Amino acid sequence: MSKRRENKVTIAIPSSTVSEFSNLREKTEVVGRIARAAAIFRVEDIIIYPDEPDESNLLKLLLGYIETPQYLRKQLYDVKPELQYAGVLPPLKTPHHPTESQLNQLKIGEFREGIINKESEGNLYADIGINIPLKLMGRVPSKGSRVTIQVTKTSPSLEGVLSKKSDNKIYWGYTIQASKKRIEEILYSKYYDLIIGTSRLGDPYHQKSEELRNKWYSSKNILIIFGSPMRGISEIIKIPNLKNVLDFYINTIAEQGCVTVRTDEAILSTLAIFNTL
Amino acid sequence: MSKRRENKVTIAIPSSTVSEFSNLREKTEVVGRIARAAAIFRVEDIIIYPDEPDESNLLKLLLGYIETPQYLRKQLYDVKPELQYAGVLPPLKTPHHPTESQLNQLKIGEFREGIINKESEGNLYADIGINIPLKLMGRVPSKGSRVTIQVTKTSPSLEGVLSKKSDNKIYWGYTIQASKKRIEEILYSKYYDLIIGTSRLGDPYHQKSEELRNKWYSSKNILIIFGSPMRGISEIIKIPNLKNVLDFYINTIAEQGCVTVRTDEAILSTLAIFNTL
Repeated sequence: MSKRRENKVTIAIPSSTVSEFSNLREKTEVVGRIARAAAIFRVEDIIIYPDEPDESNLLKLLLGYIETPQYLRKQLYDVKPELQYAGVLPPLKTPHHPTESQLNQLKIGEFREGIINKESEGNLYADIGINIPLKLMGRVPSKGSRVTIQVTKTSPSLEGVLSKKSDNKIYWGYTIQASKKRIEEILYSKYYDLIIGTSRLGDPYHQKSEELRNKWYSSKNILIIFGSPMRGISEIIKIPNLKNVLDFYINTIAEQGCVTVRTDEAILSTLAIFNTL
Repeated sequence: MSKRRENKVTIAIPSSTVSEFSNLREKTEVVGRIARAAAIFRVEDIIIYPDEPDESNLLKLLLGYIETPQYLRKQLYDVKPELQYAGVLPPLKTPHHPTESQLNQLKIGEFREGIINKESEGNLYADIGINIPLKLMGRVPSKGSRVTIQVTKTSPSLEGVLSKKSDNKIYWGYTIQASKKRIEEILYSKYYDLIIGTSRLGDPYHQKSEELRNKWYSSKNILIIFGSPMRGISEIIKIPNLKNVLDFYINTIAEQGCVTVRTDEAILSTLAIFNTL
């Protein structure tokens, strides 16, 4: 099981990311591939930033759905038309989507995603995808919450406590922010100590790889910004001299053989490259 | 328009590549993504090597179909059940798939894929996706052949000659070989001066990148071998000490966040990384 990255990697995609596709099935498939790319390369956070046309609700819904362990989906998501093609979403197969569903496969100390869905005699219980409910010990949020739980006892009863993210060193999926803030505000926020814009117009990666490697390892919060195939980030982001605001402005797909590269292809390719730093 | 690579890059994929998917639509989509990955990163040749279950005919058909310019597809491919989902294949958008279909958009010296489909008064004519046929000058193969043509005249009549691949410096799509030879024979063939096996069990890319970069630029014919998600190349290739036969045995997706990486994801990621060499 892969460890969480020591530095936090966030990707930002425009709310128009899937608008080039006319039907929901294709949109769903593309979001599925973006989610896979994020999970394969251990992205902690996906920001959906405003662009036109705005499909941030759909993106957020689908990215959230696929990030949810299969055993929790029915409880957390109502049937709705936007999830009509959820069946085509590929499984993430991350450590937080375990397939073991038997009590005897569970180990003490293991982390599990769960939903608090039962109250009995003053105790709260969670469904953690195991055939019996887990009794929650200690401080617990309200019923209906999705939580990460650490198993503390499997016999004679199944018990666990809420886990802090910092206790869990395993890569545990991504969070999603559908930002109301324009990307310009995010750029100036000072939260990120390394901001990389990706663009066909950027500097070829190989020219910058050494410099980027040094910066990558000294950074805690890394933001990688993607544009759309229609409009590159230099068109979306309304800042004169964008290059000066970004730490790097990079073309990760030099000499591309195709006229356009789709966003999901660009994300997978770019994350693959940065993963070798 | 991107130039052809100076060294020829070939990828080898097992004939079982899409066998993990149960339905033809999914198989078609995955082949579409492999084709896109190959075209984005200017792969010259795709070898389908024997594995079980063998779906080399389907792979060859779909890879060939998507590589064919849209204006030639109907003439070159009969309707058949295996092409039922051809509509979901993404466009390659390579320079050899031009969208211009008017004579006045055509430039002298331009290359075009065509099919020789008309004979009149001892002359052969080709459909090159333009509203009028092109008259072929010089030595010409028989009717029905798919050929690459260089336009030599647009007025008063449209004329062209067969082009040699070496005259055309633009990336012009990939060829496909469904090899009957076992991958072991291909490895020992001496045609390739750089053979890279990719595997989760291989050396982490970053440890080998310098060495690989040097070898990459001194090599003319590069072969990159992929396994299947079910069976890595060390299981498929029946050679003791496989590492000694390969020039490099590399893991391009270190610390993957998902338990398995699909072949199309591995191909896109790997080619993206090697493209930065």
